[in-house]
Amino acid sequence: MKLLAAEFFGTFWLVFGGCGSAVLAAAFPELGIGFAGVSLAFGLTVLTMAYAVGGISGGHFNPAVSLGLAIANRFAWKQLPGYWLAQVAGAIVAAATLFAIASGKPGFETGGFASNGFGALSPGGYGLQAAMLIEIVLTAGFLIVILGSTARTAPAGFAPIAIGLALALIHLVSIPVTNTSVNPARSTGAALFAETAAIAQLWLFWVAPLAGAALGALIWSFLLAPEERSP
Amino acid sequence: MKLLAAEFFGTFWLVFGGCGSAVLAAAFPELGIGFAGVSLAFGLTVLTMAYAVGGISGGHFNPAVSLGLAIANRFAWKQLPGYWLAQVAGAIVAAATLFAIASGKPGFETGGFASNGFGALSPGGYGLQAAMLIEIVLTAGFLIVILGSTARTAPAGFAPIAIGLALALIHLVSIPVTNTSVNPARSTGAALFAETAAIAQLWLFWVAPLAGAALGALIWSFLLAPEERSP
Amino acid sequence: MKLLAAEFFGTFWLVFGGCGSAVLAAAFPELGIGFAGVSLAFGLTVLTMAYAVGGISGGHFNPAVSLGLAIANRFAWKQLPGYWLAQVAGAIVAAATLFAIASGKPGFETGGFASNGFGALSPGGYGLQAAMLIEIVLTAGFLIVILGSTARTAPAGFAPIAIGLALALIHLVSIPVTNTSVNPARSTGAALFAETAAIAQLWLFWVAPLAGAALGALIWSFLLAPEERSP
Amino acid sequence: MKLLAAEFFGTFWLVFGGCGSAVLAAAFPELGIGFAGVSLAFGLTVLTMAYAVGGISGGHFNPAVSLGLAIANRFAWKQLPGYWLAQVAGAIVAAATLFAIASGKPGFETGGFASNGFGALSPGGYGLQAAMLIEIVLTAGFLIVILGSTARTAPAGFAPIAIGLALALIHLVSIPVTNTSVNPARSTGAALFAETAAIAQLWLFWVAPLAGAALGALIWSFLLAPEERSP
Repeated sequence: MKLLAAEFFGTFWLVFGGCGSAVLAAAFPELGIGFAGVSLAFGLTVLTMAYAVGGISGGHFNPAVSLGLAIANRFAWKQLPGYWLAQVAGAIVAAATLFAIASGKPGFETGGFASNGFGALSPGGYGLQAAMLIEIVLTAGFLIVILGSTARTAPAGFAPIAIGLALALIHLVSIPVTNTSVNPARSTGAALFAETAAIAQLWLFWVAPLAGAALGALIWSFLLAPEERSP
Repeated sequence: MKLLAAEFFGTFWLVFGGCGSAVLAAAFPELGIGFAGVSLAFGLTVLTMAYAVGGISGGHFNPAVSLGLAIANRFAWKQLPGYWLAQVAGAIVAAATLFAIASGKPGFETGGFASNGFGALSPGGYGLQAAMLIEIVLTAGFLIVILGSTARTAPAGFAPIAIGLALALIHLVSIPVTNTSVNPARSTGAALFAETAAIAQLWLFWVAPLAGAALGALIWSFLLAPEERSP
Repeated sequence: MKLLAAEFFGTFWLVFGGCGSAVLAAAFPELGIGFAGVSLAFGLTVLTMAYAVGGISGGHFNPAVSLGLAIANRFAWKQLPGYWLAQVAGAIVAAATLFAIASGKPGFETGGFASNGFGALSPGGYGLQAAMLIEIVLTAGFLIVILGSTARTAPAGFAPIAIGLALALIHLVSIPVTNTSVNPARSTGAALFAETAAIAQLWLFWVAPLAGAALGALIWSFLLAPEERSP
Repeated sequence: MKLLAAEFFGTFWLVFGGCGSAVLAAAFPELGIGFAGVSLAFGLTVLTMAYAVGGISGGHFNPAVSLGLAIANRFAWKQLPGYWLAQVAGAIVAAATLFAIASGKPGFETGGFASNGFGALSPGGYGLQAAMLIEIVLTAGFLIVILGSTARTAPAGFAPIAIGLALALIHLVSIPVTNTSVNPARSTGAALFAETAAIAQLWLFWVAPLAGAALGALIWSFLLAPEERSP
């Protein structure tokens, strides 16, 4: 139960902090934080909660990460369904809380509500193929950073910095393309509240991050891993 | 006495650095640091002073943090009044010093002076309920990060990074809503010098952060804490 | 082979993340990340991959770094050709992947594609001599940071933070001058896809970073190094 | 000699990186890094070089820091003159190198060249008293962070992060007031090349940082220091 609570609150923090910065602060007139600020916010949600509860649950906060860790033999397959449920639940509760706050501004319009998309729903108008490709590449790289920085050969204690800042980097690159997912739970939470057709595109933000995570786990396991480490 | 001096100077640094960046640098024409720069400044005040004096006083710099730590059995209740006094005193002296500097510019107008507010005093016009909710949620998350990153199961030495950057994250999300408090001492210092009616709304920035800190401490203690650690 | 795979994927990440942020996100209307966001992205590619695979290959991701480390007796000369090939290959594959994604936006124009240049191809119009000088100085400083932060006298585990953030700093200073290389592999990857005459200026972004790396390695070895450390 | 070389190159890096980001990149049209980027650049110069050569010379890079450490019994008084000379020499060579590069842009105008000032030479028009006060307060805080984060009671290895990011924070607050000195060597290097009357105001940027450093060292030694540590 403590593991699932850790994943629930960690994913809550990721979605509330990351999507919250996008919805509330990104486009504030004159002083808004822009895509760079949103990128930093997403990264810091993971950095901070990984230090807080990483020792409890491993600090995945992301169904794609849990899958990749299972493929790389760092996480037990039988725990996967519980983790996925806790992550998606945390994301949905976070999006609902954020919606309640954002609605507290007279004249608030929901719009995309920080949801992910391609084509007409891509911030920069990028098509399906570009969206698919960048989500796969970035999630694969994310898993390599996660697996590498938590390997026995990496210096102890620094992994939350590497992993959190990798998520910030990923957002710095890809917000214009898909609004950046690499995390199906985050995409699900936001899509449920968007006024747009985000929910109809949600499949891509499960397929691509999961495929990318699998790819990253395989690259790590077969091409890079210096030695195995039991979960 | 050294404990109280550490809390005094740490909270001074938090308010002088955080509110100072907001008052002096946020809206500088063309080159101003915006909400993102202010967020970073607040976070770095805690990161830096927690490394400097965290070993002396614990590095709370915030009445809500002291309360949450007491509730989680990490801090002695009898020390709470002294800490609160030192924190509020440091915040007020910092705001006074900042006021003396800011007045050194011809044509300076005090305005809100980086104070917190809701409704007409919210940067984005958010109402009381949104302000209350976001302050509670973010302070609760802040306490979970603090309690988790300083738990015996977390890697040693990294807590100031996690805690300081959590405060940066919190500001990235919530400056548009309340100008971000999560810290009653910081709110008190700024409100005393504001030209606006900030002082009349100060109650919320004691009530909500303290309630949020209590909530976070309870979530940590009952749902997450892997094991107890004596204060 | 694992060493070369680590250099390949690490340099892929550097070019895909760094140049990707420049091509896709820097100049996004209103919310773009600007030169500061691009600087952070480049730095975080190295910080994150150095934690991930630094224990495998040393985490050079840059022909100039490999050369400097060889000069300073921290890297075997006979490994240099393999490393250079892996780095350049990773950079080219990254640029090709980025091109495929960037083309997914209707109306995309390749332009400079984040390539490096001087004179007419310098973002700020800086001439050849300024470009040569700044690339030499910054690469020399980069090598001093690398050699110093990985020396036996430096605290263990922190080098990826120092090295990654040094690359961020280097970009904060020099994007307006040359679009910042300090890395011949990164320059080669981008130049191959640029519509401009970047390929005709590519020689400078091999010569200057390599010369700067040699200079930095010599300064470290003869003026600073407290004691030798075998590779 | 190695100590002085370390201080020379470290201060070179601080001035070349910090002032370089201000002169070359801060006000670049549309994509410039602004005061926030310059703040980060200054901070990262110290963070990176403190990891690189901090184990050699202590990593002061600043006459005020050397003075404060001497007052706090962490640095031998007899070494002070040599350190000051190396620091000022590094700053001047850095400013000269930067000038050579900046001149490589057709139509370059020297202007203030990132020098410090008050009154007509303050970026925001702040007067002498405000300039004096903020330089004293921020340098005092800087010394408390330096002395605290390098004390035996602080976690080992993290001091360069705390100190470098403290310098970033200091710039986030005070660039509008004095263009931020807290470092007489940095002020001297820039003032020598400014077209403005910066050299006539240079006295303040020796007096105030040195006074602030002394104040910070005394606060640390008498009010905060948990126990002494020999230099």
